[in-house]
Amino acid sequence: MKIAVDAMGGDLAPAAVVEGALRASREFGCEILLVGRESEVKALLNKSGGAFKSVEVIDAPDVVEMGETPAQAVRKKPQSSLVVCADLVKDGRASAMFSAGNTGAGMAVSLFKFGRIKGIERPALAIHIPNRLGHTILLDAGANVDVGAKCLVQYGLMGMLYAREVLGIAEPRVGLLNIGEEDCKGNELCREALHLLRQTSLRFIGNIEGPDLFNGRVDVAVCDGFTGNVVLKVAEGAAEFFLHLIKDGINSRPLMKFPAAALRPVFRDMKRRIDYGERGAAPLLGVNGVCLIGHGKSPAPAIANAIRTAGDAVRHGIIDKIRDQVAS
Amino acid sequence: MKIAVDAMGGDLAPAAVVEGALRASREFGCEILLVGRESEVKALLNKSGGAFKSVEVIDAPDVVEMGETPAQAVRKKPQSSLVVCADLVKDGRASAMFSAGNTGAGMAVSLFKFGRIKGIERPALAIHIPNRLGHTILLDAGANVDVGAKCLVQYGLMGMLYAREVLGIAEPRVGLLNIGEEDCKGNELCREALHLLRQTSLRFIGNIEGPDLFNGRVDVAVCDGFTGNVVLKVAEGAAEFFLHLIKDGINSRPLMKFPAAALRPVFRDMKRRIDYGERGAAPLLGVNGVCLIGHGKSPAPAIANAIRTAGDAVRHGIIDKIRDQVAS
Repeated sequence: MKIAVDAMGGDLAPAAVVEGALRASREFGCEILLVGRESEVKALLNKSGGAFKSVEVIDAPDVVEMGETPAQAVRKKPQSSLVVCADLVKDGRASAMFSAGNTGAGMAVSLFKFGRIKGIERPALAIHIPNRLGHTILLDAGANVDVGAKCLVQYGLMGMLYAREVLGIAEPRVGLLNIGEEDCKGNELCREALHLLRQTSLRFIGNIEGPDLFNGRVDVAVCDGFTGNVVLKVAEGAAEFFLHLIKDGINSRPLMKFPAAALRPVFRDMKRRIDYGERGAAPLLGVNGVCLIGHGKSPAPAIANAIRTAGDAVRHGIIDKIRDQVAS
Repeated sequence: MKIAVDAMGGDLAPAAVVEGALRASREFGCEILLVGRESEVKALLNKSGGAFKSVEVIDAPDVVEMGETPAQAVRKKPQSSLVVCADLVKDGRASAMFSAGNTGAGMAVSLFKFGRIKGIERPALAIHIPNRLGHTILLDAGANVDVGAKCLVQYGLMGMLYAREVLGIAEPRVGLLNIGEEDCKGNELCREALHLLRQTSLRFIGNIEGPDLFNGRVDVAVCDGFTGNVVLKVAEGAAEFFLHLIKDGINSRPLMKFPAAALRPVFRDMKRRIDYGERGAAPLLGVNGVCLIGHGKSPAPAIANAIRTAGDAVRHGIIDKIRDQVAS
């Protein structure tokens, strides 16, 4: 099983991606097709000590930039590392793909190349949000902004399958992200989705609210892609603000410098827990191929984890599991 | 000018409300009608040293509980402190009202008693979100969940007027909360609202994203009430989670106890900055009466601030300003 990795995707690419791929190969035994500008990628590989049997370089002269629209990427750059990754999966030469580049383009390319799984109305991007006990999987984090209630039900099913099959959570608890616990709460979409989710075989615990994303009450939280993307960015912004307040409070008090230095391990741990870049990647669920998308700021360890997760998703047959679930 | 204060509203009522009212009277010179169970309220006043000329007690035997639906409150409890507050404003005996009780009931009661300002499609709850430079006013934080683009434009106008007239911000910058900066981003509602907001005379800076709520890029952020309420609760949940991580990190390392104790002023300041309960109240904008709603956990200082803000809103004629703006 080979994983196609977009060597040119992400703010720290290609260096961090090449390093992450080497780590995944060395530490997790992954076989990797590293897709990007051959000379650049090979130079980085050579710098790291040369020949790695399980890492093969595939040349792709073009790069999809962060600011480009998804449509531009798909249509105008067939030779880009992102599109070549998808082609490798489509042609059966790779079993999964991973990119930490332009998220919108990554989703568009995989939807275009792989197509939707039959019966799935819209694919969803599933992100990990850190919580007190581990992670909450939130989907959709932004693949589709205007969706119907049936989509949210499918997100619940796909999220549950991902949590159970790939992350190994025995009976994932699923919640609907809303603005109150009572049945009457929320917009029309939520009220309808609540009703439909109750009729599924999911371990559905009903409406949940913002704080439940962080306290471990659920394993999977579903919402539309507009709300999910707002949540993701508000949480990121709140984290930055929080760290800024601490730093500012310490810097404005000269006497605090020493105790603050002593507390560094606490802050480092906290930063690691809330840092999205550290936590691997988000699978795009509902398309006919395994595609993981990483945070643009992903450092090498996050990329290695993402590649391993892509391998896990293939090994546990997540696509077939979703297909079977939708059919039944 | 008198402010009607719901003495029975909030988790810490009536004690914190009575104390807050006394503070507002003493420190800010506010005249207050304290509405609630007369014997309870008077007992608390007596404990605080007796006669206060500028605080008058109005008996209201009923209380709207936190779990009650808005409809129950309006229809079935005309003698509740919340409804009596609104009646006092409606009858001209008070110039504004404040309650830290059931938010939904507070909004429903003031909408029912005061009515909408002519031309305003839907009222909006405007909350303060702390940012690096001060606060961002976010509206709507949950008054209406399903709204059209025209509502978002009116939220922008009302938020600007509140920021300018009541908070004294010279030329408030207004942004549309979205999931990307580009014009094509967001759901249908956002795309239409962006277009309409551009045609106003507002100092409109376009689409903003989650982190912009915390970095001081705008003074006013507009969104629909579903999104706004999700944002509010995610930010609250994230703040709780961060504090938990710090506490946990310190408690799990015995050697960190002393430096952590030394840093207490930093943590206290930070907590104060992110604590919603500390920051007064949220005005319900768009109804024909000044109504401020406080966080259920509001302690006495927050209540005193809220009462003062209610007075400021009256003094600056916020209702007339909104009426004139909508008419033009």
